[in-house]
Parts: sequence; C-alpha cells; structure tokens
Amino acid sequence: MVAEILSVGTELLLGDIVDTNASFISRELAKLGINVYRKTVVGDNRARLLSAFGSAFGGADLVVATGGLGPTDDDITKEVAAEYFGLPLVLHDESWEAIKRIFGATGNSAWLPANNKKQSMLPEGCVVLPNANGTAPGVCIEQNGKILILLPGPPNEMEPMFTGRAVPILRAKTNTVFVSRNLKIVGVGESRAEELLRDMFDAQTNPTLALYAKVSEVWLRITASAKDEAKACGLIGPVAESVYERLGENVYGEDADTLEGVGVEILKKRGLTLSCAESCTGGMLASAIVNVPGASEIFIEGIVAYSNESKKNRLGVKMETLSEFGAVSAQTASEMAEGAAKASGASVGISTTGVAGPSGGSDEKPVGLVYIGLYVEGRGAITREYKFSGDRMKIRRRAVVSALDLLRRELLRG
Amino acid sequence: MVAEILSVGTELLLGDIVDTNASFISRELAKLGINVYRKTVVGDNRARLLSAFGSAFGGADLVVATGGLGPTDDDITKEVAAEYFGLPLVLHDESWEAIKRIFGATGNSAWLPANNKKQSMLPEGCVVLPNANGTAPGVCIEQNGKILILLPGPPNEMEPMFTGRAVPILRAKTNTVFVSRNLKIVGVGESRAEELLRDMFDAQTNPTLALYAKVSEVWLRITASAKDEAKACGLIGPVAESVYERLGENVYGEDADTLEGVGVEILKKRGLTLSCAESCTGGMLASAIVNVPGASEIFIEGIVAYSNESKKNRLGVKMETLSEFGAVSAQTASEMAEGAAKASGASVGISTTGVAGPSGGSDEKPVGLVYIGLYVEGRGAITREYKFSGDRMKIRRRAVVSALDLLRRELLRG
Repeated sequence: MVAEILSVGTELLLGDIVDTNASFISRELAKLGINVYRKTVVGDNRARLLSAFGSAFGGADLVVATGGLGPTDDDITKEVAAEYFGLPLVLHDESWEAIKRIFGATGNSAWLPANNKKQSMLPEGCVVLPNANGTAPGVCIEQNGKILILLPGPPNEMEPMFTGRAVPILRAKTNTVFVSRNLKIVGVGESRAEELLRDMFDAQTNPTLALYAKVSEVWLRITASAKDEAKACGLIGPVAESVYERLGENVYGEDADTLEGVGVEILKKRGLTLSCAESCTGGMLASAIVNVPGASEIFIEGIVAYSNESKKNRLGVKMETLSEFGAVSAQTASEMAEGAAKASGASVGISTTGVAGPSGGSDEKPVGLVYIGLYVEGRGAITREYKFSGDRMKIRRRAVVSALDLLRRELLRG
Repeated sequence: MVAEILSVGTELLLGDIVDTNASFISRELAKLGINVYRKTVVGDNRARLLSAFGSAFGGADLVVATGGLGPTDDDITKEVAAEYFGLPLVLHDESWEAIKRIFGATGNSAWLPANNKKQSMLPEGCVVLPNANGTAPGVCIEQNGKILILLPGPPNEMEPMFTGRAVPILRAKTNTVFVSRNLKIVGVGESRAEELLRDMFDAQTNPTLALYAKVSEVWLRITASAKDEAKACGLIGPVAESVYERLGENVYGEDADTLEGVGVEILKKRGLTLSCAESCTGGMLASAIVNVPGASEIFIEGIVAYSNESKKNRLGVKMETLSEFGAVSAQTASEMAEGAAKASGASVGISTTGVAGPSGGSDEKPVGLVYIGLYVEGRGAITREYKFSGDRMKIRRRAVVSALDLLRRELLRG
C-alpha cells in the first residue's frame, strides 16, 4: 500500500508551526509496512485542498490528512473531503453529545459556541474516529479502493487517535505484522551507542535497528516483520538480549517506561519514600516524579529552595557550608539531600544545585555546572558533579535526567 | 509572487527527521511578502522528483528546494533540476577550489573523496550561492519567469545561505515589507475570541488577522504589508488597539512575552516576593517561574506539599481543615497559599491542590477538579475552583496556566 501524508493549515505554510505530525505518521505507517512517497502541506483553501486530494490519490491508495477539523470558519478539510468524495455531511449524534459533554464538564455549557456543532457534521457513511482529547472527531472514508483518514491537527489529539483508531483499520488491510521494541538508554550518547552495536547494525536485516537521540537519552528501536505477532516477537528477543548484554544498566527500560517511572517503581518495591530539594531545577524534578500515577505512595515532599534562607530554614544546610563553599557546591548538594530526607522523614533525599544561566556564571563556576546529591537512610550521602551545555531550559532538563538516573543506579546497587 | 517549498530526502519521508527547513523558509518568504501555497516532501527518486518540479511550477513562480546536494550517489536534486530545465552540468571552478580548501583545512586533503567533485558540477548559466558552512554550493536558476533555488539540507548550511544569498536576489524582485504583531490571550478560548472579533475578521484586508490555539492560551497575529516598516506598523497600531479594547486584560502580552514572565515583571515592579505551595501541579508552577531569567529576585521558595504531613508541617495547614474539607478543597488551597507566604516571609503566596487523575477521583471530587489559592500580604487569601479536562499532564498544565493568570489579574488590580 502506498500512502501520502497531507498536512492542512495556513499556519504550517507560514512556518509558525513545525509539522511534527507528518513525521509521527510516517514512522507509524512504516511499522505497518506502508510506504510514504510524498508529503504535502496546503493551506485552508478550498480550491487548493481539492486539487491536493486529487493529486494525492493520483499516486496513493491511502491519504492521511491532519488539521482543519476545528470549529472555526477557516477549518474546511472535512467539508472539502466530503465534496471530493461526493458525500453529504450529516449530524453525528454521538459526536455532538460528546462535544456538549466536554463543554458541560468545564462548567462552560452556557459558553458552547454554535460553531462547535459544525465539528459533529460528518461525511455520510464514514467511519467515525472518536476524539478522547478534544472536540473534533476523526473520519475514515473508503471508496473504490481509496482510503482517506482525516485527523485533528493538535498532536495530543492526533497521536492517540491515529494509534488507537486508525492503526487497527489499516492493520486489517495488510497481512504482514510489524512489531517494534524500543530499548531506552541513558548514560551513553548516540555515537557511542552506535559504536557499541556497530556489528549488529552492519548485519541487520530482520529485525532492523534504528537509534533516536532524545533529550539526554537515546532510544533503540528493534523492528521485526513476520506473519504474526508471536513470530515477530521471537525474532526480536535474541537481538534485544544481545543489546542488554552490551549496554548493561545503561538500558533503563522499554517502550512506555520513563526514567521517573522506573525510579518510582524501585522505591515502591523497596518500601522507600522520597523527598527532593531543588535549586537550579526549580521544581522540575518534583514535577517529573509527581507525573507518575501513584507517585503519592512514595513521594513525601519537594522543596524548591531557591534562596539561601530557604536552604537553611527548610533543609538545614549550614550557614558555614554556604559561605565557605557556596550554594553551588558538592557540600551544599550533599546537605540539601540529607536535609530533604531528614526534615520530612523520607528514607531517600535527592538534591540539585547549579548555574542554569544565562547569567550568574563565573570562571570557577561556569553556566552549566550542576551538583546532584543523593542521601539514602543508613548509607549516607553521595554527590556527583556535571557540566552541561545548552540554554537554561536544556541545562535544567539535563540535570533532572541525571538526578533520576543517579537515583535509579544507586538503588539498583542494593 | 507565489512560492512552493520542496523538501527532498527519503529520511524525511520515513519520519526520522522533522522538516524544520520548510518552516524557516516559509517565515523568511513571508517577510518578503511572498506567499507559499504548498509544501511538498519527496524522496531521492528521479521520476518523483521530476514530477514534483513540474507540479510545483504548475502553481508557483518560485520553487525553493532543500536537500539532495550531497556528494553521494543518492543525492540527485541538482541533476534532476538541470534535466528539468534542459541545462547541462558544467564544472564550476570556484566551487571545486572551495571544496578542496575545506578538505585541506581540516588536514584531510588525502581523504578528499572523488565524488565530492560532483558537488561542483553546476547547471550552465545558474547563479551560484557559495556555501560558507559546507561543501555543497547552492544554485539559482531563472528561466521564462520561473525561479528555482536549490539549497543544501543541513539547517546550519541552508539558513545562512538562504538569508545571505537567496534573500537579496528575491528582495530585488519584490518591493513590499510585511510586519506582524502577536497578541497573546488567556482566559477566552479560540471560538470565543473569534466571536468577540467577528466583525474585524469579516472586514480584514490589510492588516490581516489570524488566531492560533495553544495550550490554554490563544495567539492573535496581526500582519500588515506596506512600502516600509514604519508604514506597516502604523497600519497595525489601531487594529491592535481595538483588540485590546474588546479583550481587555485577557490579552496578557505580545510576541516573546510569557505568562510567567509577565507575572515575574509585575512582582518586580511592585517590590513583591513570591513563594508557592503545590500539590497536584507538583513543582510545575515553581519550575515555570524559575525558568524566567532573573526570577531569583522575586522567588523565595516553592513547597511541593504532596502529603498531608507536608501540608501541615511546611505550610501550617490545619489538621481540622484537612479532615473536615479534605486536601482538595478551597479551604486547604487558601491555607496553603497563606502558609507558603508566611512561612517563608514572602509577600505573595500561591497554591494549587486538585485531582490530576487518572485515579483518585470521586463523584464529589472528580478528576480535573482543581483549587487555586492566592494570598497577598495585607489583602488576605482568595480561592478559585476549576474543572479541567484532559489527561494527568494536561490537567496539571492547565492548573499552572490558571494559577499564573490569577496571580497576574489580581496583581494588576492593584
């Protein structure tokens, strides 16, 4: 099956938004063994959109279009698609009820604008793809061997709809199963990971291997194709095992695992509780931990001790430590971690202190210098020094990843 | 002048790379008043590339293509473009000398691969766009009123070449300047904003208006074209003023302003300091504030009081309040905000407590219910109740935006 991806939106043509949807859909289609020969971006314009549908179906059996399903007058993708296929738009009761529920739930039912009703007018006979994260339902139209899938533009609505609703429809039309396992790696960079797996990359046929660099981590995707899922998984197994042998505990998890989720799991298993004390990361570390559902079982509290007063009063960092070594120092990080645990009665304390920039750096303590402290009851405190590059946000993110990774590795050690 | 942007590269079709080049070129063309009607992505394939050139020049006077100028055999954009225009490829001496210099400078002259010579074979009669950051020169071909610009794919080579070499060529062909102002709106949704500005949208010619929905906020872009920048700004002024009149303090800022940045600015101006107490947002609010450079001037500390113990010990929330009204209540939010300020000596305290889900909801207190408290020294505490939809992360993000917006509005009130 050959596919074209069509991204609709004047804001994409103007360059205000980078089209990440098309990349996401490409990767998902590749997993199904569906080839993409072209991607096109057009504005919210009837004539050009109509011509884009014609041109796309000239070369493709499947067109996946995103964007232009919103409530406003300039959102016309669905209307033009219906025109292209000669289908009238009819009210889809379930979608209209769902939209009313969304406005009702926010206590804004009086504010439900009339033009949101337009979102539940759908091409007659289409398969409706319900939207769990917004008001615009998706649409799948099949006619004379051509398939058109319309998805909303916001990635947080589009991605789950594509994976949950469109993929099952497409999977039923192919007879090869593609299965992927993502191994998530932290502590070694993309180039180093490639070196360590060099001969596996050179020899790859089925499964295939691909590395993806993320913020402070690297994902390795192993993809196998076979007649059924069990066979594909069987092909992946020994390859994944070989990666684990080479990369050891640098592989922190797989697929939906997150570094913070893995950390929370280890703490739960050991019956430990956690508090954190943050300076440069300013709440970002606590926020990552709190975003793990069920974190409340192990997380006691977080202190964003941005001022020296807060470090002293909340965490018991000694006056002399701050004046002798400074707020950004291994000594302060160590006392912050211990203070976070002891002051809250948690068994583990973790801390960050550093220079996130853009100002505040010096020759001795440049922008990017970060100390992380970890205190475990009965084992005392350890600290690590890091020198990160990048802007303020990137330095803070890297500090969070390093803190979570230090926590994970130290607790794995027993 | 109407333009099409053509991105060439199989890796773009596979989704392994996000096409940021097309967005960059769009924005630069918009500044020149050149409209982009379509963007296309094709692989490194002769037939499909030839067809893409034909299709692009069917609707556009200008085609800007990126990618496929590399030294390897699969890089064929320039070769196919020459074929499309019926031009032979001839050796461009200066480009060949430049390539040899690059390999010489890196001490790799012995390593100069023969296929790099291919990069200096250029269509006869073209304007050559020298590459200051790589080996592939760019190319501009003009024939019968059609202009084709070929640029290398790596953004660090493409961007300076486009700005420094292609823009002067294009500027000479237009005589209009485009200027945009973005008004940033919070507290009214996209549909509601459109309703409030309906007649302005209906009447728009120059300047034009466009709304963009972001997470919990909406941006309105006003764009004017004129002979020079001052005239364009003069056209925008009265339109922006009219938007301010209708939307009032729902417009929180413009262009690079952020809600947290505006909040920090107001606090600084009033000589106030801030501490925050978070439950459901778990550090995300502190993190947003800390990400504003210079936040340390006004930010004292943040407490992520995830457990009831922490709410009592750190913030002085009363035992009876927690047992009578629960942790998720207006009363608790109020005491958290007051406690955050008083315990740290800050003049302003802000708090969040809610049910972020996915579990933990009840009929009485469903997932998405969030209370925000704000305490201002000398004015006491106020609270607001919200019902947000979406997943755990979305509910937390919306709570952060609402907290920052409440802070902003209350402090604006004096």
